[in-house]
Amino acid sequence: MGISLGALAVRFGLELQGDPDAEVATVASLREAGPGSVSFLANPRYRRYLAETRAGAVVLDRAAAAECPVPALIAANPYAAYARIAAELYPVPPVAPGVHPSAVVDPAARVSGDACIGPQAIVEAGAEIGPRALVGPASVVMAGARIGADTRLVARVTVYPGVVIGMRGVLHAGAVIGADGFGFAPDRDGFVKVPQVGSVRIGDDVEIGANTTVDRGAIEDTVIEDGVKLDNLVQVGHNVRIGAHTVVAGCAGISGSTTIGRRCMIGGAAGTVGHIEIADDVVVSGLTMVTRSLKEPGMYSSGWPAVPADEWRRIVAHVRRLERLDQRVARLEGRRKGGQSEGEG
Amino acid sequence: MGISLGALAVRFGLELQGDPDAEVATVASLREAGPGSVSFLANPRYRRYLAETRAGAVVLDRAAAAECPVPALIAANPYAAYARIAAELYPVPPVAPGVHPSAVVDPAARVSGDACIGPQAIVEAGAEIGPRALVGPASVVMAGARIGADTRLVARVTVYPGVVIGMRGVLHAGAVIGADGFGFAPDRDGFVKVPQVGSVRIGDDVEIGANTTVDRGAIEDTVIEDGVKLDNLVQVGHNVRIGAHTVVAGCAGISGSTTIGRRCMIGGAAGTVGHIEIADDVVVSGLTMVTRSLKEPGMYSSGWPAVPADEWRRIVAHVRRLERLDQRVARLEGRRKGGQSEGEG
Amino acid sequence: MGISLGALAVRFGLELQGDPDAEVATVASLREAGPGSVSFLANPRYRRYLAETRAGAVVLDRAAAAECPVPALIAANPYAAYARIAAELYPVPPVAPGVHPSAVVDPAARVSGDACIGPQAIVEAGAEIGPRALVGPASVVMAGARIGADTRLVARVTVYPGVVIGMRGVLHAGAVIGADGFGFAPDRDGFVKVPQVGSVRIGDDVEIGANTTVDRGAIEDTVIEDGVKLDNLVQVGHNVRIGAHTVVAGCAGISGSTTIGRRCMIGGAAGTVGHIEIADDVVVSGLTMVTRSLKEPGMYSSGWPAVPADEWRRIVAHVRRLERLDQRVARLEGRRKGGQSEGEG
Repeated sequence: MGISLGALAVRFGLELQGDPDAEVATVASLREAGPGSVSFLANPRYRRYLAETRAGAVVLDRAAAAECPVPALIAANPYAAYARIAAELYPVPPVAPGVHPSAVVDPAARVSGDACIGPQAIVEAGAEIGPRALVGPASVVMAGARIGADTRLVARVTVYPGVVIGMRGVLHAGAVIGADGFGFAPDRDGFVKVPQVGSVRIGDDVEIGANTTVDRGAIEDTVIEDGVKLDNLVQVGHNVRIGAHTVVAGCAGISGSTTIGRRCMIGGAAGTVGHIEIADDVVVSGLTMVTRSLKEPGMYSSGWPAVPADEWRRIVAHVRRLERLDQRVARLEGRRKGGQSEGEG
Repeated sequence: MGISLGALAVRFGLELQGDPDAEVATVASLREAGPGSVSFLANPRYRRYLAETRAGAVVLDRAAAAECPVPALIAANPYAAYARIAAELYPVPPVAPGVHPSAVVDPAARVSGDACIGPQAIVEAGAEIGPRALVGPASVVMAGARIGADTRLVARVTVYPGVVIGMRGVLHAGAVIGADGFGFAPDRDGFVKVPQVGSVRIGDDVEIGANTTVDRGAIEDTVIEDGVKLDNLVQVGHNVRIGAHTVVAGCAGISGSTTIGRRCMIGGAAGTVGHIEIADDVVVSGLTMVTRSLKEPGMYSSGWPAVPADEWRRIVAHVRRLERLDQRVARLEGRRKGGQSEGEG
Repeated sequence: MGISLGALAVRFGLELQGDPDAEVATVASLREAGPGSVSFLANPRYRRYLAETRAGAVVLDRAAAAECPVPALIAANPYAAYARIAAELYPVPPVAPGVHPSAVVDPAARVSGDACIGPQAIVEAGAEIGPRALVGPASVVMAGARIGADTRLVARVTVYPGVVIGMRGVLHAGAVIGADGFGFAPDRDGFVKVPQVGSVRIGDDVEIGANTTVDRGAIEDTVIEDGVKLDNLVQVGHNVRIGAHTVVAGCAGISGSTTIGRRCMIGGAAGTVGHIEIADDVVVSGLTMVTRSLKEPGMYSSGWPAVPADEWRRIVAHVRRLERLDQRVARLEGRRKGGQSEGEG
């Protein structure tokens, strides 16, 4: 059930270097590919494998095409072109409409006739499940929540009451959308819980990773705009807003009431404090802590690269003595001790 | 179904500035509120919105009341007063007693007659579910575990065998209480699993966030005292003890056998090593790594604030050259190379 | 139902100092143990409790045995010996074979006759469940996945289609194995999802913690080799390979296409970038960020130990002024401003 290279070239607007009638049916890496597989070259670190590849075709850019020993599909953006070809070769099967007999669907829920409610799933009263949507095995859609057309809750997803999710989304196993925000008012004898009466609104084409959590708003809604991609184990606090087409890598945490712009990239295990604003097109590298609003696009960092532990111990010791070092330099400069060197430079 | 400002003032001991017969029925932010809503002002960064608010009433402190253009409910602690008013306006509905027909409750479990066991839930032999408690949809309460009165496992919560949870708790979706601690003894050919024979004891009024994990003890129990609040995606290792009214923000990790005092605040993505003790009233800021016992109350930090990436690269390079800088200064001071400057200052 | 100290000594090759006919039936800490309990001493910080213990026996090394006031079981590796004794005293009960009536098992699944499929569990078509394996309550094993003999999905575990898990594994509640890797190709109008057509292969004797996520490969498989132990809330990206007997502590994140060697120890909340290689026998300490391949065994670090917040503020300020300090020193050395001091030392 292959597709000819010619057909792929036409469908995706690629330039073909090679036999248009040759067919590919699968994808594979440059090193593993055989004649029936299409491969791709996007990350330069894998270019060394190009010369030896036995792939049926390689998706790559014009610069690399000259070195390609097999048919080439030349693309301005090889990774995106590869993604589209792979989606063609591995289409997501349509959901099988119907409600599994083991599912529990409240009579007051509205489930589209061609949606799929999987085994052990639960759909509460007032919930709406759109056309071709999937409420996968053991997922829970609580009262009044709405799941848009073609959105898939893969398995064991929890959607709290009143949450609204757009179209064509993918929510992976264990994701929890709409749990209470972390709102507690300190008082004399501990904390008073602050009712979290806002909800979560998620746009179209959003993908949410396994065991990721997005909290409902305290008063207004938490908002995830169209095209946002959240990796696994990401935490999104209450009243956060994440702008369209922003991606957040695994284990990152966005604290409450922070706004992130469009097309941002938040690195793995990065974190932000709450109540700040991050502009469009900001890149935050991994393990970085954002403590103030970032008003300009660009890349921001604060993560320390690992070094051998004994070198690190010396570095930490030197850093902790920096104040003294500053004073020693000030003394050499003929100044008295203290913070007086701050005006320098 | 509103409540009069006068009634709110009396019930919560607030001073009312305005018409006692005016009613509010909902909550809203200062900017969004209309005449039927109560709002609040606690964070000074939102004070700029006060002059323009159209709220039916604002909960605030005496200093801000003079500037309030609408009725004011004056409180010593406006956030806590707001929390109580919001809970009045948005009461948590009582659970509907009974066992859903799709739930699996072992005949040897003891379930209070006015507890609610939701759809697809599982209650194993010997488990006890207290009065008005909720075992929400698809939750699992394993053998011999005990859930106290009025505690709610919202959905998809897992409580391992023998775990004891107190009264009035809230456990959000995906929380896992009592999985095995991470105990493996290194041996010649890998690791030997150390049986985790302790349990978890959780006090009253504890809230546990979505997908948070609290491991059972290796020998003795892991203990979460009364009033503790854990945010989402928090990891609590085996034999940890967290003191009463301590709050732990999202993505934080507490390593095994560490004791945290009362009324501490652990910031987001902060971490501790194991086997240390943190005193009462310690604040640990976000992304901070606690590597030794903290015996004094106060705030501790080690997280680096993000800066533009090229500035950060220079900072990292300079820090890695600190030893040389120290030597250069020592040479200027007329000393020989080496670590001899350490006695300085 | 105790075991005599003599029997324990013989079975585990320990030297007994004390009465071989005395029996122990439980484990306890040095401080809590009574005459019927066996305790152990491995971490030197607990040695101070040895003199006062009332344990029935203590597992310890020869050096400590002289100070032991009660019977001693002398081991070269006391912690591993204790682990084996505890497993003897607290054996994991065999699973009860059979399929719970509330489970949903596809007729085209192959379930061993002595496997246990728990309540509300789901086993899809083509899945294989090996002998004595447990698919615990509310777990989901999707189409074509394979669970090896004696492996236990404790509860609410999700195994995606085609994933292969070896023998004698333990997967704790909320673990998600085989969700899509985080692959999105940036394009003009957002991102194109890259189909994740690889799978996950997990070896024998692997333990995976609660709410931990292991993503399926983009093209080839993500691989977890034999004996690996992953703690709770760990994220393993697509196409990662983790070598045999490596342990990863809680909240750590391994980015896509990174290879970790054998017998490594990755600390809590540590993270790696993608596409790097970590050699065998590497130790990465907690909250450390690995940004490049580590080719030599040894310990690597970059986490900052917490200090009082005002000290930390001064440290941060000094580090941000390091470039100026460097220039001041260069000026004292009689050089002109700039990066010219880099050749120094």
